[in-house]
Amino acid sequence: MKQTLDPVISYVKYDLPLPSLQDNTGDWDRLARDLRKRGYEPLLPSPGRLKDLAYRIRELKFRGTALLKWNGFLWEVLEIRASENRNPLLGAAFDLGTTRIASYLVDLQHGSIIHQTSVENPQIPYGEDILSRIVYANTPEKLKHLQELLINRINDTIRNILKSANLNPDEAHRFIYAVAVAGNTTMSHFFAGLDPSGICKEPYIPVVNRFPPFRASEFGLRVHPDALLYLFPNVGSYFGGDVVAGIIATGMHRSEDISMLIDVGTNAEVVLGNKDWMIACAGAAGPALEGGVVERGMMAAPGAIDQVRINPDTLELSYHVIGDARPKGICGSGLIDLIAEMFQAGLLTIQGKINKKLKNKTHRIIETEDGTAFVVAHANETADGADLTITDIDIGILLKSKAAMYTILNMICRKVGIDIRDVKKIYVAGTFGNHIDPKMAIRIGMLPDLPLETFIPMGNTSGKGAVQFLLDRRVQREVEEICDKITYIELNVNVELMHEFRGALFIPHTDPRLFPSVRIPDAARG
Amino acid sequence: MKQTLDPVISYVKYDLPLPSLQDNTGDWDRLARDLRKRGYEPLLPSPGRLKDLAYRIRELKFRGTALLKWNGFLWEVLEIRASENRNPLLGAAFDLGTTRIASYLVDLQHGSIIHQTSVENPQIPYGEDILSRIVYANTPEKLKHLQELLINRINDTIRNILKSANLNPDEAHRFIYAVAVAGNTTMSHFFAGLDPSGICKEPYIPVVNRFPPFRASEFGLRVHPDALLYLFPNVGSYFGGDVVAGIIATGMHRSEDISMLIDVGTNAEVVLGNKDWMIACAGAAGPALEGGVVERGMMAAPGAIDQVRINPDTLELSYHVIGDARPKGICGSGLIDLIAEMFQAGLLTIQGKINKKLKNKTHRIIETEDGTAFVVAHANETADGADLTITDIDIGILLKSKAAMYTILNMICRKVGIDIRDVKKIYVAGTFGNHIDPKMAIRIGMLPDLPLETFIPMGNTSGKGAVQFLLDRRVQREVEEICDKITYIELNVNVELMHEFRGALFIPHTDPRLFPSVRIPDAARG
Repeated sequence: MKQTLDPVISYVKYDLPLPSLQDNTGDWDRLARDLRKRGYEPLLPSPGRLKDLAYRIRELKFRGTALLKWNGFLWEVLEIRASENRNPLLGAAFDLGTTRIASYLVDLQHGSIIHQTSVENPQIPYGEDILSRIVYANTPEKLKHLQELLINRINDTIRNILKSANLNPDEAHRFIYAVAVAGNTTMSHFFAGLDPSGICKEPYIPVVNRFPPFRASEFGLRVHPDALLYLFPNVGSYFGGDVVAGIIATGMHRSEDISMLIDVGTNAEVVLGNKDWMIACAGAAGPALEGGVVERGMMAAPGAIDQVRINPDTLELSYHVIGDARPKGICGSGLIDLIAEMFQAGLLTIQGKINKKLKNKTHRIIETEDGTAFVVAHANETADGADLTITDIDIGILLKSKAAMYTILNMICRKVGIDIRDVKKIYVAGTFGNHIDPKMAIRIGMLPDLPLETFIPMGNTSGKGAVQFLLDRRVQREVEEICDKITYIELNVNVELMHEFRGALFIPHTDPRLFPSVRIPDAARG
Repeated sequence: MKQTLDPVISYVKYDLPLPSLQDNTGDWDRLARDLRKRGYEPLLPSPGRLKDLAYRIRELKFRGTALLKWNGFLWEVLEIRASENRNPLLGAAFDLGTTRIASYLVDLQHGSIIHQTSVENPQIPYGEDILSRIVYANTPEKLKHLQELLINRINDTIRNILKSANLNPDEAHRFIYAVAVAGNTTMSHFFAGLDPSGICKEPYIPVVNRFPPFRASEFGLRVHPDALLYLFPNVGSYFGGDVVAGIIATGMHRSEDISMLIDVGTNAEVVLGNKDWMIACAGAAGPALEGGVVERGMMAAPGAIDQVRINPDTLELSYHVIGDARPKGICGSGLIDLIAEMFQAGLLTIQGKINKKLKNKTHRIIETEDGTAFVVAHANETADGADLTITDIDIGILLKSKAAMYTILNMICRKVGIDIRDVKKIYVAGTFGNHIDPKMAIRIGMLPDLPLETFIPMGNTSGKGAVQFLLDRRVQREVEEICDKITYIELNVNVELMHEFRGALFIPHTDPRLFPSVRIPDAARG
């Protein structure tokens, strides 16, 4: 990516001229003069540390290493190390998801991730979804409790990743000098102990969008007390720092070309733009795609069917299960595969109904209490010994999600007067992005019919953006610029979607010219 | 002085657009946006106060007053006040002298000093002079003790000046938002709890010359905990923040003309320069002038003779006593008057000896155990019922001081290749400057023979500079510039002075061409 590493913490060796009658500047000033000459300006000692730092400069005989923190405004001398000190210089990055917290231990001297892990969000017992947690946190005590859960879990995680990296977890304060945290608007409010209630009621006002640079000790993080604690800013109540971090991870804000970022979580968040402009929106498109709503849906975890193939001639079905276990359910990418393959085999009509006419050609179409269903895995193959089926209702739910997604993508392009075909890169974030097969998603009309190389799976963009923040001092300013220039459209209050949406409920769409690459089988015409 | 008041604490009324679906920026961001638009940038909340500030913005319905602190690098929102809050907005300035602490309570909204006072330095029991205190403070505990004495005295003083200003001293944290402190290098080390031992031993290295902006709470000052605490920087071990503040008070750093600042304390500190360059030195010239060495010398306090007149024809003597009391001693300006008047009346020779030839014309010339003496006040006039006399020895001491002073003034001019007559203004600081009569000082050859309007008595320049810091946001940068450009000459290691010095021991000088305005009476030629 970059030529030179320029992280938010700088490791600066110094060897100062010794005090003399000819050069009788003060001890602290001697170091400060040297650092300023080398471009570390403005420069201050960490608050309350002037004395210790100045004494240490003399103690080390004017030779050592200064650890400097860039807080977005100035350089701060955090610590003076003896030259023989071989402690690593680390940062930690966190993506605070509603469900899981992803953590990264980053080597700031060498620019590498030395360990990463993911743990459950400890707030889940207080609400699976973020709204229930907002409702729960209706007193300062309960709000504080949710904050503490989060901080404790992060502290535990820091201990664990240090252990995994063979570092003494009790010495975190001697290793970790910067922490970057990205989360949605509510999670970042919980993290900062701020009342999130304004986020979910009109006019949807967060307490804070752009956070000041914090110190780790302010929130009780057990790293160096003066470590930089950066919380990615939110753009609005429904567009959080996690997506801003995602933009950073894609680099779309530095590109001449127009790119798009699609982040499917509970909401689908979409960002469109380039280095000059940026527009974003969010809409409810996610749950079915994350496998949370469909009867046998599940997250992309061991036991989930994540790939399905159907031979259009024989209608023979094969699938892949994550962890190569017996199937327990089907995840988002599995569902998309399933719908796409059923459609191509004529097992689904363009209206998204299971094609009963093919009952005679396959035993997988059955009638159940919930109506017509399609057996993905037979009882003798599954983990629980029951048929793993998908019903017309399930498919309807999925089609609503895919229609919402497609509508959002088109709507956002139209908002800025471009055609979706002008988009050169589409970054697909999240587990979803890693598992989804763009070809299948195009076939069902969820993603636009663009060359397959347009689609780039990105994994956890939010976590990656947070890591990038630690490693590149320019990122903080870029984040500010993104927040300044981005236009956020609240889709929740936008009705224009409905017209679009209806056409997109079909497979792939009522207007097949939008999907020239998708062959519509005769059987699917119903 | 200035057209608009621009103090380090800004009192900014705001009336923000209310949150709406069209403008759903965060509560904190709403205020920050408004303030930034109005030029308060960069802007941050006080550390640890984001939540309280943001809540308060909402609580006050987006209308109120923000108190902003300029710390030299950025604006910091300290507090949000309701519009009906009528608390004053105050700052406190301190001149930490070795002997006394001068305090000023400053109204930052109106740019006025509302109260001022002066108290004894509580460290005096640990050493009259600064060197003894450095010797005393040879353990961290004793150093801390001296610091605490200082802080406690300052806190007491704050309470007292608030009371005097009819403000509740328990509410200091609701009134005082900035504190400026100027002191010599050692006093500022004591204040900041820094080991001063390097100051008095070769190569004379302070721990810190330029202090970062502190918070009042860091040192336990009982004002607003986030109040700006500014400690004037030192230029070197023997050139402290008090003199830097003095330069600020004179404004010489903003002038095209060359000016000079003379500050007579324990040392005589002299600064020469203009807006482009500046040179400074310090030398032992003070004690006698402060009245501390001469037998009957005393500080300019009640009971001190501060003015003397002698009729050259009748040799009749009259004097003025501070506080119109019976005389206890004689202060610096009184001594200068006395010498000058004795000289003019022929009672002193140009060598500075009492002219015994005039014994027959005045009963004031007497012989004592200490040699020939001159009675300034007879026993029946004095406070202690003893003659108040001055001896040849006393006069010799004073002449050494005046010679040192004159030598320093000339030497510093020669260093930069100018003639002392090129100096357009000479600011004379301190009690000394307020009491001294330049005509008399010229007559004895202490000050150069320049037009009388050249000499401007300034009083406590250090205190005034500290007040000015509070009232003018530009001062902090000017201070930095002064420290950057000033050249400090250590007179302690300079022998060239001696040649000059010998000529200056005479009254007014061995070379009378240097003092064309001074008439040398025949009798004085000895």
